[in-house]
Amino acid sequence: VSESFRQQALARQNQLTKPPGALGQLEQVAVQLAALQQRVKPAVQNPQLVVFAGDHGVVAQGVSAFPQAVTVAMLSNFVAGGAAVAVLARLHGIGLSVVNCGTVTPCEHLAGVIQCPVMPGTQDFSQQPAMSPAQAQQALRIGAEQVERLHAEGCDLFMAGEMGIGNTSAASCLAALLLQQDVVALTGPGTGVQGAALSHKQQVLAASVARAQPLVSSPLQALEQVGGLELAAMCGAFMRAAQLGIPVLVDGFIATASALLAVQLNPGVREWLLFGHRSAEPGHAALLQALAAEPLIQLGMRLGEGSGAAVAYGVVQQALALHNGMATFAEAGIG
Amino acid sequence: VSESFRQQALARQNQLTKPPGALGQLEQVAVQLAALQQRVKPAVQNPQLVVFAGDHGVVAQGVSAFPQAVTVAMLSNFVAGGAAVAVLARLHGIGLSVVNCGTVTPCEHLAGVIQCPVMPGTQDFSQQPAMSPAQAQQALRIGAEQVERLHAEGCDLFMAGEMGIGNTSAASCLAALLLQQDVVALTGPGTGVQGAALSHKQQVLAASVARAQPLVSSPLQALEQVGGLELAAMCGAFMRAAQLGIPVLVDGFIATASALLAVQLNPGVREWLLFGHRSAEPGHAALLQALAAEPLIQLGMRLGEGSGAAVAYGVVQQALALHNGMATFAEAGIG
Repeated sequence: VSESFRQQALARQNQLTKPPGALGQLEQVAVQLAALQQRVKPAVQNPQLVVFAGDHGVVAQGVSAFPQAVTVAMLSNFVAGGAAVAVLARLHGIGLSVVNCGTVTPCEHLAGVIQCPVMPGTQDFSQQPAMSPAQAQQALRIGAEQVERLHAEGCDLFMAGEMGIGNTSAASCLAALLLQQDVVALTGPGTGVQGAALSHKQQVLAASVARAQPLVSSPLQALEQVGGLELAAMCGAFMRAAQLGIPVLVDGFIATASALLAVQLNPGVREWLLFGHRSAEPGHAALLQALAAEPLIQLGMRLGEGSGAAVAYGVVQQALALHNGMATFAEAGIG
Repeated sequence: VSESFRQQALARQNQLTKPPGALGQLEQVAVQLAALQQRVKPAVQNPQLVVFAGDHGVVAQGVSAFPQAVTVAMLSNFVAGGAAVAVLARLHGIGLSVVNCGTVTPCEHLAGVIQCPVMPGTQDFSQQPAMSPAQAQQALRIGAEQVERLHAEGCDLFMAGEMGIGNTSAASCLAALLLQQDVVALTGPGTGVQGAALSHKQQVLAASVARAQPLVSSPLQALEQVGGLELAAMCGAFMRAAQLGIPVLVDGFIATASALLAVQLNPGVREWLLFGHRSAEPGHAALLQALAAEPLIQLGMRLGEGSGAAVAYGVVQQALALHNGMATFAEAGIG
């Protein structure tokens, strides 16, 4: 990250034909990418989005509105191009990869899904640790390896999405342990749990955090106790992207829980993270605040899949087009 | 506007492979466009943005950070492609027109600027009416004629922008009279007036509204007393777009003042208006509230030119791509 290029890009913004600051966050994104890419005119030519999928044993407790088989059904929908993130990737020319980190339903038959299953879904973390330390390391490594593959192919902006019925529950518990906040306040409807079902979800998660809390004295232990395979993979991907110098555009609630984990494991990751959108899921605000993050969009989305990052990528494109394509006052003969 | 197509589009949204409502405002935009275009799968194939320009006599009172000659200098920048809105129009394939409604500096030499000058800038509305009733009608007609031209060319989404040094002052006074609110609370930095200069701007505008108030008993009289030629043209354009059945994507503070005027003149205009962005200019919030408008983006922009609408057009594209391109649960073989 280059302070010199940040200043040069900021100086360019202040010479463009507009009042200084009049493009708001669009200016800040361009300047941040200039600092990360170490050039006055940053560009993104090979954006990549990886959807990591995994299942969650805690769904046995009735915390989700959808049956677990939907995880793999949606993987099929990703590779067939019918899911939201697939539509957005097509619209914007974002490369899309889909990785099985551990689903309950077998999915080897799905052409186009990268197979890296650690286990057939996590254990029910209301009763026991979601995964062993070795399984957590394996899942973290999946994300790192995907970023290494994309880096070799020239990826210059990385996004991660997730699919896994029950994973707002895992993200809420992980956020509660990492933030040391009450899990109930961090728990929302996810895919659509409401009323009595939401109260039940909150009770299950409160009991899960109460079970895990005495066993957790590090961020990695929080992941092992209440995390998910796809959350671990996203965390590993974010850390490796930062190490390899690839800017990251973070998606919503679940991806931000993984981002906070990555930053707690390695604070140097933070400056490589741009934040795509503010989710309607209530726990997202607390995570964003802990990361001092100001997302680009706020459209009331709560889908996951990386869909919020993909929408925000459109704003990144606009920010770069403006930064690189606008005339300066001198070029326009003004002033 | 078709309630039947609204319901059909909503039904489609609820069959797409996502939890109902999980795409937030992206769903609402698509459904609204379906109702306006009277088809289940709406589309925008010929988006057009017109920048209306005019000067303001009130700048003699020292209310702007930029000299008046910048208005025409920026018109040159629009047609040369170096201005923010020109960059965004190019990025998104939005047709861009630039119309002189009345600048102080002559600009007949600028190829590509449509010439419809009403007068060489408005009168200083701190001292006298900005324009006569006949001049206001002529300026309203400019906007209507541009929309008629674009309608004949197949325009299916209309955006308006403005350029005119001093026009946040006109918009603040117009908003104060239309909303019957204190002009000081509706007055912000515009292109960058701060500190003592902002206090001075607020005093000038408070005196202007105090002068005009007793003379105003209709929205049109408010326009004549404290409006601007480009504000009138935008108002005329919005009204004609609604009459011709063209959905409108409204820009920021100044365009929203014109939109409120249009809605007060003809309440039927309201349902044709989508709102692009929430400006950093403080008066915008009051205008949006009066119109019960929920803009798509909030990036701290305060540039005008139609730049906020052009950024929001990217979100409209995404909303339509998702609505039309996502698989239904039945198509994906889920559930």
